[in-house]
Formats: sequence, structure tokens, C-alpha cells
Amino acid sequence: MKNLNFHPAGRHFLHIPGPSPVPDRLLRALSYPTIDHRGPEFALLARQVLSGIAQVFQTQHPVVIYPASGTGAWEAALVNVTNPGDEVLMYETGHFASLWSQLAARIGLKPEIVALPGNCSQTGFPNSWRRGVQADLIERRLREDSQHKIRAVCVVHNETSTGVTSDIASVRRAIDAAGHPALLLVDTISGLGSADYRHDEWGVDVSISGSQKGLMLPPGISFNALSERAIERSKLSTMPRSFWAWDEILQANQAGSWPYTPNTNMLYALVAAIDMLINEGLDSVFARHQRLATACRQAVHAWGLEVQCAEPSAYSPVLTGVVTPPDVDADGVRKIIYEHFNLSLGTGLGKLKGRMFRIGHLGECNDLSLLAALTGCEMGLRLAGVSLSGSGVSAAMTYLASTSSVQARYHAP
Amino acid sequence: MKNLNFHPAGRHFLHIPGPSPVPDRLLRALSYPTIDHRGPEFALLARQVLSGIAQVFQTQHPVVIYPASGTGAWEAALVNVTNPGDEVLMYETGHFASLWSQLAARIGLKPEIVALPGNCSQTGFPNSWRRGVQADLIERRLREDSQHKIRAVCVVHNETSTGVTSDIASVRRAIDAAGHPALLLVDTISGLGSADYRHDEWGVDVSISGSQKGLMLPPGISFNALSERAIERSKLSTMPRSFWAWDEILQANQAGSWPYTPNTNMLYALVAAIDMLINEGLDSVFARHQRLATACRQAVHAWGLEVQCAEPSAYSPVLTGVVTPPDVDADGVRKIIYEHFNLSLGTGLGKLKGRMFRIGHLGECNDLSLLAALTGCEMGLRLAGVSLSGSGVSAAMTYLASTSSVQARYHAP
Amino acid sequence: MKNLNFHPAGRHFLHIPGPSPVPDRLLRALSYPTIDHRGPEFALLARQVLSGIAQVFQTQHPVVIYPASGTGAWEAALVNVTNPGDEVLMYETGHFASLWSQLAARIGLKPEIVALPGNCSQTGFPNSWRRGVQADLIERRLREDSQHKIRAVCVVHNETSTGVTSDIASVRRAIDAAGHPALLLVDTISGLGSADYRHDEWGVDVSISGSQKGLMLPPGISFNALSERAIERSKLSTMPRSFWAWDEILQANQAGSWPYTPNTNMLYALVAAIDMLINEGLDSVFARHQRLATACRQAVHAWGLEVQCAEPSAYSPVLTGVVTPPDVDADGVRKIIYEHFNLSLGTGLGKLKGRMFRIGHLGECNDLSLLAALTGCEMGLRLAGVSLSGSGVSAAMTYLASTSSVQARYHAP
Amino acid sequence: MKNLNFHPAGRHFLHIPGPSPVPDRLLRALSYPTIDHRGPEFALLARQVLSGIAQVFQTQHPVVIYPASGTGAWEAALVNVTNPGDEVLMYETGHFASLWSQLAARIGLKPEIVALPGNCSQTGFPNSWRRGVQADLIERRLREDSQHKIRAVCVVHNETSTGVTSDIASVRRAIDAAGHPALLLVDTISGLGSADYRHDEWGVDVSISGSQKGLMLPPGISFNALSERAIERSKLSTMPRSFWAWDEILQANQAGSWPYTPNTNMLYALVAAIDMLINEGLDSVFARHQRLATACRQAVHAWGLEVQCAEPSAYSPVLTGVVTPPDVDADGVRKIIYEHFNLSLGTGLGKLKGRMFRIGHLGECNDLSLLAALTGCEMGLRLAGVSLSGSGVSAAMTYLASTSSVQARYHAP
Repeated sequence: MKNLNFHPAGRHFLHIPGPSPVPDRLLRALSYPTIDHRGPEFALLARQVLSGIAQVFQTQHPVVIYPASGTGAWEAALVNVTNPGDEVLMYETGHFASLWSQLAARIGLKPEIVALPGNCSQTGFPNSWRRGVQADLIERRLREDSQHKIRAVCVVHNETSTGVTSDIASVRRAIDAAGHPALLLVDTISGLGSADYRHDEWGVDVSISGSQKGLMLPPGISFNALSERAIERSKLSTMPRSFWAWDEILQANQAGSWPYTPNTNMLYALVAAIDMLINEGLDSVFARHQRLATACRQAVHAWGLEVQCAEPSAYSPVLTGVVTPPDVDADGVRKIIYEHFNLSLGTGLGKLKGRMFRIGHLGECNDLSLLAALTGCEMGLRLAGVSLSGSGVSAAMTYLASTSSVQARYHAP
Repeated sequence: MKNLNFHPAGRHFLHIPGPSPVPDRLLRALSYPTIDHRGPEFALLARQVLSGIAQVFQTQHPVVIYPASGTGAWEAALVNVTNPGDEVLMYETGHFASLWSQLAARIGLKPEIVALPGNCSQTGFPNSWRRGVQADLIERRLREDSQHKIRAVCVVHNETSTGVTSDIASVRRAIDAAGHPALLLVDTISGLGSADYRHDEWGVDVSISGSQKGLMLPPGISFNALSERAIERSKLSTMPRSFWAWDEILQANQAGSWPYTPNTNMLYALVAAIDMLINEGLDSVFARHQRLATACRQAVHAWGLEVQCAEPSAYSPVLTGVVTPPDVDADGVRKIIYEHFNLSLGTGLGKLKGRMFRIGHLGECNDLSLLAALTGCEMGLRLAGVSLSGSGVSAAMTYLASTSSVQARYHAP
Repeated sequence: MKNLNFHPAGRHFLHIPGPSPVPDRLLRALSYPTIDHRGPEFALLARQVLSGIAQVFQTQHPVVIYPASGTGAWEAALVNVTNPGDEVLMYETGHFASLWSQLAARIGLKPEIVALPGNCSQTGFPNSWRRGVQADLIERRLREDSQHKIRAVCVVHNETSTGVTSDIASVRRAIDAAGHPALLLVDTISGLGSADYRHDEWGVDVSISGSQKGLMLPPGISFNALSERAIERSKLSTMPRSFWAWDEILQANQAGSWPYTPNTNMLYALVAAIDMLINEGLDSVFARHQRLATACRQAVHAWGLEVQCAEPSAYSPVLTGVVTPPDVDADGVRKIIYEHFNLSLGTGLGKLKGRMFRIGHLGECNDLSLLAALTGCEMGLRLAGVSLSGSGVSAAMTYLASTSSVQARYHAP
Repeated sequence: MKNLNFHPAGRHFLHIPGPSPVPDRLLRALSYPTIDHRGPEFALLARQVLSGIAQVFQTQHPVVIYPASGTGAWEAALVNVTNPGDEVLMYETGHFASLWSQLAARIGLKPEIVALPGNCSQTGFPNSWRRGVQADLIERRLREDSQHKIRAVCVVHNETSTGVTSDIASVRRAIDAAGHPALLLVDTISGLGSADYRHDEWGVDVSISGSQKGLMLPPGISFNALSERAIERSKLSTMPRSFWAWDEILQANQAGSWPYTPNTNMLYALVAAIDMLINEGLDSVFARHQRLATACRQAVHAWGLEVQCAEPSAYSPVLTGVVTPPDVDADGVRKIIYEHFNLSLGTGLGKLKGRMFRIGHLGECNDLSLLAALTGCEMGLRLAGVSLSGSGVSAAMTYLASTSSVQARYHAP
């Protein structure tokens, strides 16, 4: 059995858009001794986790926690509010929206995909993969559905494959304007904790998220934040389900427990992660990521490359997609960067394979982390023979320096 | 946000039958930095994990790993080999067998429960909860099913609620003797890694297990070990499924990846756990637990109390159920022990609530760990006013001393 | 290079009288990221450490912290208050008192040893190694020193080699009664944090301690708690010194720094250790160890063996020395116990080599930890062929059960 | 008691010239459970450490390990080979050389300082603080010492306060050329493990080092590598000593032990650190640091600032001293960088206070770590109003990209 206690010379720079680098404090929390999940200490832990995670979703309603990774929470959201064979309207913003619709089909639903038509003339990318959700397309489709066969509208808040963040409140308004009873299900797996997200204010019925992005944890725990309507709907749902079923979990949670063994050590780390976010202040966290994302785009522009997101109001604070020139294999660039500079970047997924790479600036990212990643990109692009129009790093430094301030330092109580 | 970095004075003794105490080495492995699950290091990790876990199941066939806790693997085993509405035959050995059949019903199957009839005259406990699987009852039922409506036979290898370990090979023989095509599904969640388990030799089609018992990890990762027949059956299964579906996972595993984000940090710890088991030697591990279990029963007998398992050939090497006298509230005893001696024991579950407690001696347990637990039990029983016929600790010491030997010490390579 | 990430099957039981088992929380604290020892975070840390450690010594005066193990603090105490060639009076309570006097000689002092004369008729051990400090012998010697050549009186508070705790206040009274200006230097390396110790109230001039005993840390940090007189004396001392010199340290400490690089990570763990002690309450900590020590002696008596300490008022709450019968090699017994039961005990040191072993019950020890150790001892003694008159474990359980209570549980703020 | 589990938002960048950032693997090693330092596991550990550290010093002779920080090893080297009042010749390369001579005086030696005369016309800095050891000055002085009163020649290999690395072999040649019996004592506290260092080949008698620089550990452990002559000399030394005395340590080491309690957990981490260095290959490690140092100087030059070291052949691979313009307070710049960018740099020490800052690129530093630090410096210098002649980051990127290669990745066995 090979020893995994590996350590290449020097620090690895993990800048994929998730899993994001796990802060030392959370790694330590993860290694607290496992305790009896039916004992009194555990109930204290459970209560902290449940109230804390609701703060992060900005909701007064229950949040269901699954000892499972994020894809499970996608399935969970659907099976609790649908009946077999139901139609669900899914807006295609990118690869993950597309995967979610495939999942819906596999569990016996009828997903209908809405998307902006056509391809980008320059890049050949689908137009819909370069812009946020177009709420008017959803509204139009819902108005056509006079029989209300569509059970739910599914959208991705922050599309991890492209770096596009959608206006969720506009989707809520579209559904309401259409007078349609469909629930609003939102995937904020990569958004939560780095991009502003307001479950209650935006009228979301089920918000889906995971641990390994803005929450800065390793993968392995995921969430469904609920609304009253979602809970009511779940009581009528005939979709067979057990592990994902909300009812038993909501009931057990009232006593600080779960109907089956929770993943205790991830909960330890989750409490610590929530504490980090709340103490920095959610608004400060969101502002930090907006600033880092702006700096990152300044770099891309200075290089003379194109940002994947074509709609400035939808730029993601979580990651930036960088389109490589037509004759450059983006994965070749990534490989050079990885092998020469110990930096991991995100690959182009699905229809974007080989045409772009993604720079994650989520989670605990700060000015120098981002700049380190940008230096690796700039050197790697040059090594790959990509002709750059200027120094992206210099542009990013100029922006960051001009917007920097004395950082509030946080100490745990 | 409350700080969870708590530490009551002195070491806590965790002797519930899972989660078992996580060895320091595994806690450290859990805290390795999270890496890119699509990068080259990860593929190395995946290959080690997949081949290593197969060794632990003693199988040449694929083992599916879920980034989810054990209950999910129960559901996974069923949804991959059944069609909606299928009948499944489930043998009731205790509370967990019972919960599994409830899960089966919730996901749209028709579970039929087989059990030994009647209650124990002394304790009032169901007879079926004090003995292992009676394969002849299964054979008889299968012979009656001439139309082969029963899709699967489900049994629990080591019943965590009672401390009874069943003879799985006898169930295989019963199915074969009946000439019935039902698959054999076995829950060895609490058995694997502490009790001998042979997926291939015993002819199991799907073995279900989890991380937090004999594998000594925190909860959060679970398994389906497969057979050829199970894989074939899964291709025909019409049960809607996505997260739990084997097909995509088996395919991705061939390239050292998973179709969705795996829980990387648990995989780090899993590699280390497998390494510990393989280096100690599975046979040595099983012998260690058999010896500890015998010592534990010697203690119970010396106290004048009854072991929950009434069938010596089915005594569990993983845990021992201790029946308290009729007038003694077992949970009251547990509370005293917990509060006075910092020792956590398992509660009586379901039909056994308040009538028994469970002593876990699984995972990294050794002579002094077990004896520490037994001293806590003995003192707590006395404090609770239970009249004991002798010192269980003395009996256990006598047995352990007489069977002890110089321990081989293991060092990682 | 061999991998040290070893883990023999099952938990190791470390019951030497130091290093004591390091609680998980302290191991985690030890692994916080190292920071700039001249930066603002560090100054916060320094201030907490300096005020916290004074609380543990029960002093209002400065405590000097050395990034060095305990032996260094012995040397430090001497070199700061003496001149070359000075006489120091050292009371021999055992091996460590003896080593300290050798150290004094090596650094150019003239140690004079005071001890009870004669040997124990039964064991042949020196009488002085079985009893606490006899303050009258010290007083008598000081009275004879009319020229006040004796610069300091050195005594060991808790003699780690024997399990004898001396009455320090009586030594102070003796010095005062003799009207002698000698300083009182006390080694409480193994006492501090487990046995009651009052630097100010007892009138100690220099208290010496280390990290790896009652403070529950690994070895590597040590202390000199000072008095006003000690500080005054140090200003006149002509002993050449630099690393151990108090002056620069005391001055730098006022600004939250040290004159040379402190061992930052040990300071992290030290803050956490102090927090554990203060939150449990020093009185509760001392009472816990007294109770555990009593239980341990009950066990020794029940075995029919002799406790090394022959003076009940001097029984150590930290460790218990167990005298083996004349024909039994104590180290052979220890070896059996270590190899069969994964339990480390203290060896007989110096004049006691092979004649006794030592059971540590310091630091984070609690009822079940101690009982685990006692079961290992009892089984090992039997395996070694030692004839025991009864079960020590049973005796200890009887005592512990009868004196147990619901434990206050501590959570960090 | 305040909780130290602090974590400001985002990763801290520690680029002082020591303590250097402790790699995760070493932090984990530091948290292995403490064991009996007289038991068999410990002896294995000791042997590995002792042979491994000798490889790092490139010596066949013994290396004495102290459970104390580096300043202690300075004192140790002197007290083992001198008699009270001896003369020692100390070459002043900077602040640490100066501190060492103060230490020598405090312990009763007569240090004589040799240095290049005069100050730099531009910066006003002492010429001797901008250049390496001038061996001819040493040779001249030794030739004058016809009575051989000078007991030892003391030089600093890598002067941490300035970023100047001296040619140690030339000092050996100078001593030999003078036919002088003085021992050669070399401080390589900040050099070892990052800068090439050859104890045997260069004819050093005592090499002094510490843990928190190139060895990548926290502070708290230090070293004296010896020569035959040093050992012989120590047998004649009349300097009073105990804690620092080599004799007992060398003797105990032969049995894999120490005469007093070693700092076990630091030894765990030390084994892992040595393993990292040996597996990367010492030559590769040294080449990595030379390349990083060159990149750093390219940045300084591009900014139009001056490197503290004025002698190209003496440029340090460990750190780079950056001289700020006459009207710029270097500590003000450092403060801005620290508060805005979470980056710690070294302050100007002693005579250089406020006139320069130091960038550490020792230990586990790699391309992106260094570039992150340089971006912080460049932005901070601009924020401080320092006029820069160009982008140092761009210059460093150009150099690093042009000299980069696919990195060999290391996995522990």
C-alpha cells in the first residue's frame, strides 16, 4: 500500500473552482475525535450547525444536511417535490445545468431545457453558456403551460463550468408574473459562501449546496434549504425516496439528531467554517470575492484574452473562465502550468473542452493567493507560446493596490 | 458560535458499536490537503483505494464507493438490482434489519419479513433478535415462490443492535438449494474489518458496508461490493436512480475517477485504514476481535447478566449486547456510566429500548481498551444498584492474560 | 528513511510519569501554523502565555519561559542566583535530586547533599528515597552555616523517580527559622499542574518546571518562576550565562517578545493546556489526581505489594512507585506488560533499577485511564509469575466507584 | 483565556527569513502521539534522526541535537571547546554575528571582532555588513597571534540579517595557511537545508544550526555538528557546562537515547523534514533556492532598488535584503504590506533598522510562493509612495519562466 503522505517540493496552489483550498483551521476541526452521534455533546453540535448554516443561506427556514456530496443534494431536491414523470423546466447555463437535467431524466422526470438559442460567432460557444439565466424565456414558457404540468423551475445560481452568475430574484419574478405554481429550485453549490445568496429574500423554494466551494470544506456534505411551500409540496410527493426524504430528517433535527448516522467530523469542520464566514461578515466575504474577481478579469483583459462570461452583470465572483485563442489547446496550457508551477486550474467541461480554462478565486482566496495563481497562468501561457498583449499580473496588481485597505483581522472568540 | 474544541478532563472512552474510535493516524490522514479530483495525484489515490477495499471485502469484483453514509449504501444496493414494486425477502435479526425493510418499502419495494417466531420466555425479546439468520426459513420461503417474484434476499451479517453475527454462507446455500434466482444482498456495515467477511467465497451478490465501524473512519463513506450477477441484473433494473447508479461509477472508476465529486479526504483516511488492516493481517484482525469478544462475554457471565445473543455460534466479535435485569433501566445505567466515567455505550434500540446496552469492541480496540470499558461498566452497574454475582473485569483479565502473547508491532513502510 | 507514521494495532497506553499522554486538543494546537515571532499576533500570544503560566504556578511574579527541556531550567535556576564555586545545599529525595546535584557540580558549584541516613531494612532502598524532605535536617545544616556560605537550598517537590511529594512550605519555615539568607529553589517539574503547588504562598524563590508532565505537553519548554529576592540576587550573580540569563528575557517579555526565537508552536499548545487546567479549576485538577493516586495505592496494597513511598503524608498524586518482591526483576515485568498489553510504565531509576516500576497517573489521566493501566499491571504481574494477594483492579474500582460523582464537563468558550 | 485558533480571512504569507512556513506534512508529524523516550520505538526514531541529520550537514561525524532553540546551540558550541577567558575571533558580517559575539562575552570569553572597515558611501551601512567573510583578514590576524591565544574562529555562513553568504572553505584555508590551531566554528542556522553546506569537506569543527529555517520546522531544536578535533578539544575544555555538554549526549546517543528528555515531537517532524530534503535531493534543493534568489534579485533590480549584499558571489540563496531609498522608512513599508496583503517580511536589524527589509525564500518556497511575496512587496512599495523604475514581478516572472522545467514530483515511500 503506497504512502499518501506525499509532499512535492513547495506548496501546491489549488485554484480549481472547487474543491477550494481547505484552511488549516478547518483541517484541524475535521480531525477532532469522533463522538457518539446519539450523545449530549452531539446534540449541541447539531443545533449549532443547523442554526449556523441557515444564517449562511440567509433563511429562517430549515436546512436539510446530507452526509453526501453535492450531486446527492441535486437528486434530493427533485425527489422531495415531484411525482414520477413530472415535468421540470431546467435552464441551461452550462455543463452543470446540463448534468442536472440528465440526473432529472435518470430519476424518471421529464426535464425540459430552456436556453438562449445560437452560438457565439467568435468562439462558437453556445450563447446560453456565456450569459446568465434569461428570466423572460422562463416566464414565456411558464405562460404557455396553462395546465401547470411543470412542477419545478431549476436554475443554477453560479455556473461552475463557465463563471456566470445568474439573477435568481428575476426568476422568482418571472414565475410570479406567469402566475405559475412551479417551485423554484436553485443550485448554489459553487455560489454559497462566496457569492451573495439570499434564499428567503429571493423566494427560492429549494436551494441546493455543497461543502467544498465557498464553505471551504472538503467534499462530502451537502444541503437543501427549504421554503414552506417546498415542505408542503414534499408531503404530497409520491416519488419513492428514503435516504433523501426530508420528513424524517426534519423531525429528527428537532431533537438535535439525524435519522441515520451523520458525518460527524464534517460537521465539526462545518461549524468552524460557518464561524469564519459569520465573523468576517457575509457582506465582507462577498465584497472580497467581487474585488478578487474584478482583478482576475483585469488580468485576462490585459493578456488580450476573452472572459468566458459575455455579460458583465453576470460575471462570477467565484471563478473566471478564460477562453484560449482558437489554435491553443487550453488543456495543454493547464498541463504546462501544473507541471511547471504546481498550480491546478479548472478544465473546460463538456462543450468547452480544450477551449478554456477556469481560475477559481473562491473560499479563502485573498490578494496574494490570486496573484500567485495569475503569475502561474501568465508564465504558463507564455511557455505555451500564447501571444499576450500585456501583463495580466501587472493589471491585477494595479487594481488590487488601488482598492486595498487595512484588513480587519479576525480572531475566534 | 460556540467553540467545539472541547475537551472534558481526561480521555473519553467511546465504546458504542460505531462510530468506533478513529485512530490518530487516520485523523491525520483525514487532514491532508484536499487536491484536484481530476488531477494525476488523485488517480493514484483512486486506484489504491479501489484495489485496497476489494482486499478487505475479500473479492475480485468491483467495489462501488459512495461519498455518503451507510444508509445510502443500503438504498443503493436495492435500487440497482430491482424494479419498482419488486418483492424482497428480508430476514429480521434486529433493529437494523427492520430499518432496512422500512427503507425498502419507502423506495417502492415490497419487503417481506422472515423471522423466527415467538419471544424469549425470560427476556420477552423476540427470539429472532437473539439468534442468527435461520437459513432454512429462507429456503422454505424461496421454494414456495415458484414464480420467482422475490428479487432479492436481504440479510444482515452483523446485527449492530443485538450483537449477533449470521452465517452468510448458509444463506447462499439455502438460495441455491431452493434453485431460486434471487440475489443475495448482505449488510456488513458493522461487520466488515472486524468480523471475518468473504464476499466472493460466500457467494454474496451485493455487500453493503460503511466506514465508521471496523474500518475505523468517521462516518461519511460507504460501499457496495458487487458480483457479476449483480452487475448484470443492474443493467436490466428499471428503478429510477442516478446518484446511486453503479453504471457511471464503474465506468469512471476505470480511469481512476468518479462521475461526481468524491469525498477526497475520507479517501485519504480510507487508504490509511486499509493499510492498517492489511499490515496487521485480516486473519489477525479477526482473531483479535474474537478474543476480545470472548473476554467481554466472560465479564458479562461473571456479572451474572445475560448476553443478548442466545446462540453461541452467532456471538458477535464486534459488540456484545448486555441484558439488564427486568427491573433495571439500561439507559439509566448508561447515563450513570457516561456521566461518572466518561464512557459511551450503545443504547438498546427499537424493541430492546431500556432493556439492554451494547459494548462495542470493534475497530482499533485492544486488551486495555476493552478492560477500561469493562471497569466503567462494572462500576456503573454497581452505582446503579445492580446486584452482580462477581467481577466481570477479573474474569476478563483472567481470560485475556491466559491467551495473551507478545504483540507483533506494525510500522508503516 | 523509515516512515514514523506507525500505529501498532490498538491504542498505546502511556503511563510513565512523563511525558504524559498529550491530549488531542494540545496536539492540534501544536500544529497551528508558525507565525512571525516579531509580529502583532505573537505579542498577543506571549501575553496570554505569560499571565496564564503565572496562574498555574500560583504566583504574582514573573515566570521565565525557556525554549528548552526541563533539565535546562534546572541549570538556569542555578546560574542566575549563584557565583562560581558557591555552595548549594541539595536534599536527596531520589534519582532526580541526585542528578540535579551532579549538574550543579558540573557547572562549577559545590553541592552538599543532605539526606536521611540509612537504608530500609526490608527493601534495602535508601531511607531518604522513601520519604519526603525532612526540613529539620535542612534547618540544622543551615544553622551550622554561620558564615552563610550556602547560597541556595534545592529540593524536589515531586520526586519522579520514587513517587514522593515533599512539603515545600516546611522547607521555607526551616530556612526562616535558621535565619539563613539562602534562596529556596524547588524542582516541581513533575508536580506542577497535577500536584498542588503554590510558588508565592510557600515562599519559593525559584520554581523549576517543564512541559511534559502535568502541563500535558510534549517535552521542549521549561520554566523558572521567580521571586523578588531571586531577581535581586540575579543582578549580583557573577556566573557566566547568556541563554539562561533572566535579565534580557524579563526585559523583552514586557513587550511580549523574547530576546531569541521562542518555540512558537509549543506556546500555542501551552496556552491551550493552561486553558484546560484553569477551566477545570486547579483545585479540581489536584483533587482528581489525589483520588486517582489513592485508587492506585489501593490496587498496590491489594496485590500485596509495597508502595515505594513509605510516608503516607508524602504520597505523590502524580505517580506511584511499586516495589516488586526481591526475586522479581521489575524491568522484566515491565517488558512483559509492554509487549503483551501495549502499556508503558516507568522503570526503576538509579539505585532502584530493577527493584520497582512506576505508574504515572498525571496529566489528563482519569478513572478509566488509570484502571486500564492497572489491568495491564495486574495481568502482567501474573504472567511474570508474581504471586498477588488479591485483585488490585477490584480494590481500585471499589474505591473509585464509591468516590465518583457526575463529572463537570468543560467546553472551551 | 483567549482562543488562539485564529484565522484571518485568507492564507497568511510568511516570508521572514525564518521561521519559514512549516509544510503541512511536518505539522502533522509534529502531532504524532508522544511516546516513552526510553522505549524501543524511541530508539528507532533516534537512530533515524541522528543518521539523517548527519546527511544534511554532509558529515560523517556526530551531530549533537539539543532540545533548545538555535541561540542555545551558539552557546553550546563555545562552551564545549573553550576555557574561561579564552579569546575567540569573530568575524562581523551582520547583526547575528554581532549577537553571537555578545553572547561569547556574556559567558566569559574574550571575543575579538574582525570586520571590513568603513561604511558604504551610498547607504551608510557598514561595508562589512554588505559582503561575505574576508578570509585574508582572518589569516592576517591569526598570523599575528603567535602565542595561539585565539581558541576559535567564529563565522556566520548565511547572515540572516543581511542576505550575505560567506565562503566557509576560504576561512578554513586561511586558518591552515596561518598554521593556527584555532577551531573553526560556523553558524549555519539559516543556511542549512537551503544553501549548500559541507561540514566535512569545508573542514568545519563545529557547525551550529537550528530547525526553523531550511529544515522547515518550528523553532525549538538545534544542532552542533562536530569534528574529531572539536571532540578532542572538548575533553580538555574547562568551561563549566552541563546541559550543553557534548560528552554525555554523545555517549547516550550510541544507545539511541539522550541523557535528558529529548523533545520527541520535534524529532518526529525532523525525521519527516530530512526525508523531504533527501528525497528532493540536496543538490536539487540548493539549486531551487539559488534560482528563487536570482528571481528575487531580478525583481529588486527592476524596481530600481538595491540589494543589501554588495558582492554578487556572496548573494544568499536564503533571503534577499532590500535597501529602501534614504527617505523611506522600511518598517513603514513592511507595516503596509502586512496590513494590506497579509504578508510578513523581515525587519532591518541592528544598524539597518528602518533602512531595509528582508524577503525570505528559504524552506519550502517555490516559484508561486516567491511571486506571491513579490506581488505583495511591489503593491506595498507603491502604496508607500516609493517610486519604482519597473515591475519587479514581471522581471521575476520572465526569469522564472525562462528557467522553469517540469518539476519532479516527490512521494514519500
